[in-house]
Amino acid sequence: MAGTSEPSMRRGRRPGSGSTRQVILDAARARFASDGFTATTIRRIAADARVDPSQVMQFFCSKDELFAATMAVPASALERFDTAFEGPDERLGERVVRAFLSAWEGPAEESEPLMAMLRGAIVNEQAAIELRAFIQSRLLHGAADDGDAMFRAGLASSMLVGLATSRQIIGVPVLAAADTERIVAAVAPAIQSVLVDSAGTP
Amino acid sequence: MAGTSEPSMRRGRRPGSGSTRQVILDAARARFASDGFTATTIRRIAADARVDPSQVMQFFCSKDELFAATMAVPASALERFDTAFEGPDERLGERVVRAFLSAWEGPAEESEPLMAMLRGAIVNEQAAIELRAFIQSRLLHGAADDGDAMFRAGLASSMLVGLATSRQIIGVPVLAAADTERIVAAVAPAIQSVLVDSAGTP
Repeated sequence: MAGTSEPSMRRGRRPGSGSTRQVILDAARARFASDGFTATTIRRIAADARVDPSQVMQFFCSKDELFAATMAVPASALERFDTAFEGPDERLGERVVRAFLSAWEGPAEESEPLMAMLRGAIVNEQAAIELRAFIQSRLLHGAADDGDAMFRAGLASSMLVGLATSRQIIGVPVLAAADTERIVAAVAPAIQSVLVDSAGTP
Repeated sequence: MAGTSEPSMRRGRRPGSGSTRQVILDAARARFASDGFTATTIRRIAADARVDPSQVMQFFCSKDELFAATMAVPASALERFDTAFEGPDERLGERVVRAFLSAWEGPAEESEPLMAMLRGAIVNEQAAIELRAFIQSRLLHGAADDGDAMFRAGLASSMLVGLATSRQIIGVPVLAAADTERIVAAVAPAIQSVLVDSAGTP
């Protein structure tokens, strides 16, 4: 724990990794709120939290992941999306559709923070600015060297979030009543075509 | 509402037709708010407004259209969607994508009420209940005799609303920066596959 020269004010005992993580999270939440996602740096958050930047990276692998953690989105949700977009193109559509459905419609600890982030961005302009920077950063992370791949990943993601919104938030009966396998069968070829097929590229 | 397919004269010359329309709208807004979309009938709204049910139908062709009007969604937006889903299957995806983009991203008098309806439904449970009943009714209107077509129209619509949300409300840069033709080229084949191809049907 090099760098934590001053003991936390909140606890009498020497802080363990659990509380260091929490101190970083609190500093990050405050800094993202005051400076916004784009302007905030890991270095600045580390200074606020009085830890070394390497410690921030030890707990949270990237600024994206740290931001997601401040929104209570677990790293498992981000990994789920990343894993789905990686790998061979064959059955890519199906993998991505399953990843989105399982994150947005799965366990409450993943789906509720995602819903909260979306609801917040739809009603609050500042939250929308944060979410747009976060999504753009995630898309760059996934396809930094390929603008067209980034565009296509953005299209597919937004279409699948629309589907999850209709099922989970608005609850359109004909969609909410359909089971996951029926959705995957109907939508996977479409998402495959958005992500992989180049026929539509101008 | 069967049997009222004849085109209506929405702009009658009869003196006072403007105010009659407004009286009906006010009655409808109050009745939808108190009883909800599903339980409200044209007959009941007519009674509230002290007009004949046929007059309600003369101004608004259906309960859907009347509800949309109370939300300030112009009939032109509904017609745009209906027209896109009708007609031959060839290039159906492209027609539907263009219809959604032009309504959601077009003139403020169409796009703003649609956005307001969506924002309302995402933050307010009662508004979500109304919107879900309205969308279900619109889907039934378009494909009453075909549950699978209704399911597919619901999928395509929700995916395109997700796309419009990402571009217009959240403003994800890679999507917001893309011009309409690039979006149509990338997405039309996908929407075509959701709506028409039966390969994915279980």
